[in-house]
Amino acid sequence: MRKYISEFLGTFLLVFLGTSAVVIAKGDALTIGLAFGLAITISAYSFGGISGGHFNPAVTTAMLINRRIGVVDAIFYIISQIIGAICASFFIQVFVKALGYKTTALGQTDFPSINTGTAILVEGLITFLFLMVILNVTSDDHGNSDFAGLVIGITLAFLIILALNLTGGSLNPARSIGPAIFAGGSALSHLWVYIVAPEVGAILAAFCSRLLGSEY
Amino acid sequence: MRKYISEFLGTFLLVFLGTSAVVIAKGDALTIGLAFGLAITISAYSFGGISGGHFNPAVTTAMLINRRIGVVDAIFYIISQIIGAICASFFIQVFVKALGYKTTALGQTDFPSINTGTAILVEGLITFLFLMVILNVTSDDHGNSDFAGLVIGITLAFLIILALNLTGGSLNPARSIGPAIFAGGSALSHLWVYIVAPEVGAILAAFCSRLLGSEY
Amino acid sequence: MRKYISEFLGTFLLVFLGTSAVVIAKGDALTIGLAFGLAITISAYSFGGISGGHFNPAVTTAMLINRRIGVVDAIFYIISQIIGAICASFFIQVFVKALGYKTTALGQTDFPSINTGTAILVEGLITFLFLMVILNVTSDDHGNSDFAGLVIGITLAFLIILALNLTGGSLNPARSIGPAIFAGGSALSHLWVYIVAPEVGAILAAFCSRLLGSEY
Amino acid sequence: MRKYISEFLGTFLLVFLGTSAVVIAKGDALTIGLAFGLAITISAYSFGGISGGHFNPAVTTAMLINRRIGVVDAIFYIISQIIGAICASFFIQVFVKALGYKTTALGQTDFPSINTGTAILVEGLITFLFLMVILNVTSDDHGNSDFAGLVIGITLAFLIILALNLTGGSLNPARSIGPAIFAGGSALSHLWVYIVAPEVGAILAAFCSRLLGSEY
Repeated sequence: MRKYISEFLGTFLLVFLGTSAVVIAKGDALTIGLAFGLAITISAYSFGGISGGHFNPAVTTAMLINRRIGVVDAIFYIISQIIGAICASFFIQVFVKALGYKTTALGQTDFPSINTGTAILVEGLITFLFLMVILNVTSDDHGNSDFAGLVIGITLAFLIILALNLTGGSLNPARSIGPAIFAGGSALSHLWVYIVAPEVGAILAAFCSRLLGSEY
Repeated sequence: MRKYISEFLGTFLLVFLGTSAVVIAKGDALTIGLAFGLAITISAYSFGGISGGHFNPAVTTAMLINRRIGVVDAIFYIISQIIGAICASFFIQVFVKALGYKTTALGQTDFPSINTGTAILVEGLITFLFLMVILNVTSDDHGNSDFAGLVIGITLAFLIILALNLTGGSLNPARSIGPAIFAGGSALSHLWVYIVAPEVGAILAAFCSRLLGSEY
Repeated sequence: MRKYISEFLGTFLLVFLGTSAVVIAKGDALTIGLAFGLAITISAYSFGGISGGHFNPAVTTAMLINRRIGVVDAIFYIISQIIGAICASFFIQVFVKALGYKTTALGQTDFPSINTGTAILVEGLITFLFLMVILNVTSDDHGNSDFAGLVIGITLAFLIILALNLTGGSLNPARSIGPAIFAGGSALSHLWVYIVAPEVGAILAAFCSRLLGSEY
Repeated sequence: MRKYISEFLGTFLLVFLGTSAVVIAKGDALTIGLAFGLAITISAYSFGGISGGHFNPAVTTAMLINRRIGVVDAIFYIISQIIGAICASFFIQVFVKALGYKTTALGQTDFPSINTGTAILVEGLITFLFLMVILNVTSDDHGNSDFAGLVIGITLAFLIILALNLTGGSLNPARSIGPAIFAGGSALSHLWVYIVAPEVGAILAAFCSRLLGSEY
């Protein structure tokens, strides 16, 4: 149970800090990227010791493939992550309404400037790279467990900065589900892209990272 | 006595670096958030070894509940923190006057855009999350003592960035008392919100963090 | 083979995160500098344990001079780095075209405001300083292997910020080759500056760092 | 001799990265503060193992008082620091001229908006706080030697951000001497403030830090 609370809290913090930086603080690309990325750093060092610190269904999928987690736990991890993201978006919506903003902007992910194929390529590629970093920096063979939480957070930050004007930079189905449920519109109709593409990227990374000896 | 000087210095640095980033450097959300947050990081590594590094009456309250500090020390910690914050605001006022700014802005906290109930919700929720991070990242069971000071500072930074346009992001009664005394006005009449809400959030976190096994 | 994949991936991430911060995120100097610099930090902790984490032909040259790597490996390292940079620039070009930008800007390096001699001085001097930091912070005698990856990344970030309005801040032949191939124009005709100057700076640092006892 | 080269290089990097962020990159307060501050972090981890990593005559004075360095070394440290700063300002001037800027701005420190007494108070107070952090975070009793270089750099960054609109934020006689020599004008006639005030602040901190048990 502690593991699921940990995954709930970490994903809550990710969506809470990240999407608020977009819609409440109205930060620039660096502020937004760091808010999402360092939320993972915070949770990794605070709760990662309990659950392993996935906070992302695509990460849990890759960990399942590489047998770092069992099937039952993986299912409950993903459920906890999605509930955490939805709770965070609920609070963001409450705050946005309290401020009197007449908008449906809740930090949802969408791709108004590019076509669906490119969006899938972007989300798939950046999630692939994100998992390659995660699987190698946490590798017993050649990683660094002390700095892993910081490195993973920085990686997420700058991959999101790269993708902000392309797809919004999700890399995480739960992070996209949370705001989409409350925002609706094309964020909801495009939601499948933010579930399929990160999962495919993560699955590819789970196999490719073995080339680098990250698994035994 | 060394412990109380440590708490004085850390809270002084928090208010000195944080509120000056608002009113003298006139920084953006990222600059302001990092100024407050990393002030705690600085003090945690420099003086935390002496006093435990609370620098915040709400943190001291949570530590008292979880028996990481005694009652007498807790009282003197809180007094030292409040004096540190007031001294910092005194210097900020001197500098603002020296610059000839015709303003009462000293980095005080207030909530001009939302109602009192939402302000209490915001300050209570973010202080709850702040303490959940503090109590778990410093946990012997699953925390990381080396990175704790960095993680706690980053957490404060991005929780303040989230709340900047809502309540100003205090999470700390001492941090709000310091500037309010010199600024007066609604910052002073609303001061009770910044004492009650963080304390309630911290007390809830002191109990909830036990669910994650942060205490023994 | 794992070593060459590591060098490929690290240089890919450098050019991918760095040049996208310029042309897609359109970030300010700090965002751009940190995107390039922290890309090296990410790769150093994730893949550096496999290959040593050069991600830069000039670094490989300095390591060859100081006998931290053999000749055959050095050649394959540099080839892997250049291929990684070209692949990254290929993806950046795909994304820029997908966004419909009518531009040849791909984050290539050039020096429109200064003459060639000054450009050589700038790139030579900053690469010299970069290698002085690398060779000393990784020194067994007086360096710090845990923090080396972070320090090297921060160093690259602020040397690039310094040089952004002078030469674009390359310090790395591979980083300049990647975008220049797709962008053409004066970035391609000036490419020799970004190969010669960093290599000269790195070679000088390889010898000078011995004055500080970084080698045995 | 290696110790003096280390002090030369570290102070060179401080002035080179810091003042260029002001006059060449024209960064905002956060960029400028981090450029100066993280330059110290870089040098502390790269060269600090050789010389102790002062890079500042005021720091050397405090270390002399607390007998962490001898008199002869202290004199050669300060000479090396001043030469390093002057060399850095020389290169900055070359680059500024190469860009065709018609300006005497070289990142020199001055206080156009406040009177001399307040300037002395500001520089004295922030250098006092800077040394309190340095002497405690490097203390064997309660400091953290691994994170000290990072903490000291962050401290300098945010103290400079605080003082940027007051005195420019020097905290370091060498850092002010370098640009003032080339810029002349009131930066040169006010130079004594940037020598006296930091030294007084550092001397006071050398004694006050003993209250916290930082020395034996």
